[in-house]
Amino acid sequence: MRPIKRLIQLDEALRLVTERSRPIERIEEIPIGDSIGRVAAKDVVSRISVPPFARAAMDGYAVRAKDTYGATRTDPAELSILEKIFAGSVAKKVLAKGQSSEIATGAMLPDGADSVVMVEDTELKRGKVLVNTPVHPGQNVSRKGEDMAPGTKILSRGEILNPSKIGALAAIGTEIVSVYQKPVVGVIPTGNEIASLGEKLKPGQVYDINSYTLASVVESNGGTARRLGITDDSMKALTAVVREGEECDILVFSGGSSVGERDIMLDLLEKEGEVVFHGIAVKPGKPTLFGLIGRQLVFGMPGYPTACLSNAYIMLRPVLRRIARLSENPPASVKARMSKRFVSTTGRTQFLTVRLLNGIAHPAFKESGAITSMAFADGYVVIPADVDLLEKDEEVTVYLL
Amino acid sequence: MRPIKRLIQLDEALRLVTERSRPIERIEEIPIGDSIGRVAAKDVVSRISVPPFARAAMDGYAVRAKDTYGATRTDPAELSILEKIFAGSVAKKVLAKGQSSEIATGAMLPDGADSVVMVEDTELKRGKVLVNTPVHPGQNVSRKGEDMAPGTKILSRGEILNPSKIGALAAIGTEIVSVYQKPVVGVIPTGNEIASLGEKLKPGQVYDINSYTLASVVESNGGTARRLGITDDSMKALTAVVREGEECDILVFSGGSSVGERDIMLDLLEKEGEVVFHGIAVKPGKPTLFGLIGRQLVFGMPGYPTACLSNAYIMLRPVLRRIARLSENPPASVKARMSKRFVSTTGRTQFLTVRLLNGIAHPAFKESGAITSMAFADGYVVIPADVDLLEKDEEVTVYLL
Repeated sequence: MRPIKRLIQLDEALRLVTERSRPIERIEEIPIGDSIGRVAAKDVVSRISVPPFARAAMDGYAVRAKDTYGATRTDPAELSILEKIFAGSVAKKVLAKGQSSEIATGAMLPDGADSVVMVEDTELKRGKVLVNTPVHPGQNVSRKGEDMAPGTKILSRGEILNPSKIGALAAIGTEIVSVYQKPVVGVIPTGNEIASLGEKLKPGQVYDINSYTLASVVESNGGTARRLGITDDSMKALTAVVREGEECDILVFSGGSSVGERDIMLDLLEKEGEVVFHGIAVKPGKPTLFGLIGRQLVFGMPGYPTACLSNAYIMLRPVLRRIARLSENPPASVKARMSKRFVSTTGRTQFLTVRLLNGIAHPAFKESGAITSMAFADGYVVIPADVDLLEKDEEVTVYLL
Repeated sequence: MRPIKRLIQLDEALRLVTERSRPIERIEEIPIGDSIGRVAAKDVVSRISVPPFARAAMDGYAVRAKDTYGATRTDPAELSILEKIFAGSVAKKVLAKGQSSEIATGAMLPDGADSVVMVEDTELKRGKVLVNTPVHPGQNVSRKGEDMAPGTKILSRGEILNPSKIGALAAIGTEIVSVYQKPVVGVIPTGNEIASLGEKLKPGQVYDINSYTLASVVESNGGTARRLGITDDSMKALTAVVREGEECDILVFSGGSSVGERDIMLDLLEKEGEVVFHGIAVKPGKPTLFGLIGRQLVFGMPGYPTACLSNAYIMLRPVLRRIARLSENPPASVKARMSKRFVSTTGRTQFLTVRLLNGIAHPAFKESGAITSMAFADGYVVIPADVDLLEKDEEVTVYLL
């Protein structure tokens, strides 16, 4: 058996992983309707004016402003009405002195008009319109290009597409947007004891948990998970699955990185690439392996479900988000007070799952083999390596699961 | 033209909308690998023990604890070694007094053994194992059912599926989970001036923005958007699209709820169902219509893109999340200070878009017709109806877009 030689601290592990990761460069073209949350890969510059014409910003009457100067309720300006202009239609007549056209919000201003009088400031009388309040040129008009002039940059490379940015793309008629591809993460549970869901368990077997938990973390952090199937703890099977996953940006193995004789992940990584570290000072999750095969990042996570998943939160999540070009923001968190004193392992970062009840954090951790250590928790506290103790009532930050 | 009779306050509008909404009851069965973020529709109770057998929690030697009592480094217990037990395999031999079996983490404990000595606490000598430290019964063993006993409730109706809950389902071999269906929201831009993306704009036309912004808000808040196509401002066309969307939980029209002569959304809703309110005291977004067709919620949003989208954030989002059974948490927010004094409209809730630069919120609103009022912003401040003024340097909560 090969013991882990030296534990490295979590921040050092994160630094080593981050240094070896690169934001994705592959691009794809997708319909804007599918682009929410994706990352723009190219700047987009408008070639048109939005709006493409001067338009009424209010329902009312298109007028020449000077015809309304001095108008009051007692001495209104009286204008003839040429026509009605609806949104989407075009005026048939050009306005001259003393004339107006009824106009709907969004409709193109007729030639000759420079402003719109709100309907609320008018009265109709014998087929004419009485204007009670003067307008200045441009009043109640959205001028051509007011929203976007040709040449306006409406999207920058690296921005996340949100509803309003998607709206800006629609405004200039863009159907397809260039975005960065999602990083592809191959997920590989290893071990002869792992059974697929739907199989009947043989003696000594347990169901595959890690490929589902890992894939869920990947999918909710901007990646595409590819479940490559349960793989035996043999060099031949592991080498074959590395070939199968060679297009992936990241490979995440679970199981097989502890110190048992059959733990051949280390041999695999030494043969196929390079080991960067083996063993991190975290609890749970110590027997974690990281290395490279070419430019591909390879994680060997512990097989125990809670250890595997806590590592996915604290190590895989940030590096995946970096590669996906998403912000590295921590998960949503709340403040809470510890329900009781908690003694943490000296020198190791502890990932402590907790249940939240009325603002009190109750430790929920059972053991790293128990998925209910996390499934029955509401969140987790990260206790730094140099903190040995959380006192009862001490305030902690709980990251929500 | 029909003026809006009475504006109601936003909180009253939200109350009226909420009262008429019901959490979705339709259920579907989906693979657990697709269930991240979905809402469980049924309790799930384990029928099996997890782990299904007592297993080694450490690499080491399966022993009878009493054989190790009193063992020390200077006076170790010496045990014979029967075999090696790997994870996924089954012991061939039963342990008797003075015997041990080498065992890997996760492997099933052999009959006769009650504990595991960690490999670190042993030495090998002439084919025997020397145990330096005593163990007690159960030490370094995960007992059968320690994670979940048969009858343990592992998922409750209404819980959101997160990675660890999905892991708990996998642990008991569950492939398919019952979840609530996503509410379906039909999105219908109306108006003769609206052109589809990819079409060449005719004079007087603008591109369809709202169906994309609305669909994006729907998709990022637990709904399924169904874009029902641009619809003419005619009773015939609107009635037809209501039929087409009759399976939807919510219909959201945009355009056609202002006071122009062609604004026939109100007629439509009166004919097909019931008007609940018309006109809310918000800025932008005043000409908003809400009603029911049967049990279907129907919104008539303003046609102007920023007004339509701000209403989607403050009205559609919370009711959609309620129907989808998601938490009604507000969007992520940050605190910032106003870059300058801002005068808000008295008596109306203002949705003020801002750019954030070094913790300072700079108003970004141009006009409700301009999508760049929002697309070029980082977030928004909701200024209550009874607040008339934000002072320079005043702290505000900025909800991120």
